Amino acid sequence: MDGILIELPFASKNPHKLIEANIALRDYGVKLVPVDVEKLEIQSEDLEKIVTYAARYAYSILRKPVVVEDAGLFIYALRGFPGPYSSYAFKTIGIEGILKLLEGVSDRNAKFVSVVALALNESDIIVFRGEVEGSIALKPRGSEGFGFDPIFIPQGHTETFAEMGVWRKTLVSHRGNAFRRLGEWIVKNRDKLIRLL
Amino acid sequence: MDGILIELPFASKNPHKLIEANIALRDYGVKLVPVDVEKLEIQSEDLEKIVTYAARYAYSILRKPVVVEDAGLFIYALRGFPGPYSSYAFKTIGIEGILKLLEGVSDRNAKFVSVVALALNESDIIVFRGEVEGSIALKPRGSEGFGFDPIFIPQGHTETFAEMGVWRKTLVSHRGNAFRRLGEWIVKNRDKLIRLL
Repeated sequence: MDGILIELPFASKNPHKLIEANIALRDYGVKLVPVDVEKLEIQSEDLEKIVTYAARYAYSILRKPVVVEDAGLFIYALRGFPGPYSSYAFKTIGIEGILKLLEGVSDRNAKFVSVVALALNESDIIVFRGEVEGSIALKPRGSEGFGFDPIFIPQGHTETFAEMGVWRKTLVSHRGNAFRRLGEWIVKNRDKLIRLL
Repeated sequence: MDGILIELPFASKNPHKLIEANIALRDYGVKLVPVDVEKLEIQSEDLEKIVTYAARYAYSILRKPVVVEDAGLFIYALRGFPGPYSSYAFKTIGIEGILKLLEGVSDRNAKFVSVVALALNESDIIVFRGEVEGSIALKPRGSEGFGFDPIFIPQGHTETFAEMGVWRKTLVSHRGNAFRRLGEWIVKNRDKLIRLL
């Protein structure tokens, strides 16, 4: 670190995502700052495609480097459902719906995936992926975090994300992993990034 | 009709939709022909927004009038789920998943919505909406149609869409209603449309 904290625009209205991203990035000399720009998401089963398109679109409005993130819960026994549409599924059928779909299903394995995209310009979009394997709890536990956190138990742990709290969650989470990869990239490319900001 | 059949590009790879659209349009002197252009769909809970964006995008590639359609099954007890993501829900949790989500739920009311957009140019997008109220059957019945047709019973009927077959389905369906509205618009605007094609 050369003592300068890089502030990078983050196209998200989700305060939980902002906090988790900045926890993951705290050792990399960079801080995300929310920016009010429309996050245009396309329909796709491929999170990389969704964030690449969204990052390009956000750049086309802001005209400076910008970060976007998208994430999903992929439940194997449900052929990946709810996947990229996790926040819609959360708003409609909710945790209760997911648990109902898994009633009598023995395979409760799932993974959380987060994909972060940094747009340096309209054609130069760098993508960072983070994943965490785990399983779906039999009932919701814990009150921290957001979305499906109360029913996701990361592999090697017994608590759900919502029981862990944001600091311990971010140490192992898909989002923590993806943003740490962004952090590593930024450490190696500080000068280039500072010139573009 | 002046005896000329208008052939209009339809950005869809779904053969069922093409057949249903052309059944609905057969009295209006217009026939849709499939065109191989990427259908870019954004994530939104608003089908009008999705088709407007998709129609504009398809026009930007084709540079001539083009029709797109999007549809969804909105189940009231599930807060509208699966809505605009019906085809993803069909591929993942399927009919079985929807029936499981409704186990023990007394309100099985739902509606099918279809929204058709005709792009005349990049800024002139005309939207036609069709709806049909109905309910979700206790188990799938019938083998015609596609998607959730085997579990949707339109109001005032006892058969599911999949039992009705495509001709009787289209007389009452959301898609039939939306495309008949497109047909009525075309009858009134034949000359304008022919000039643009």
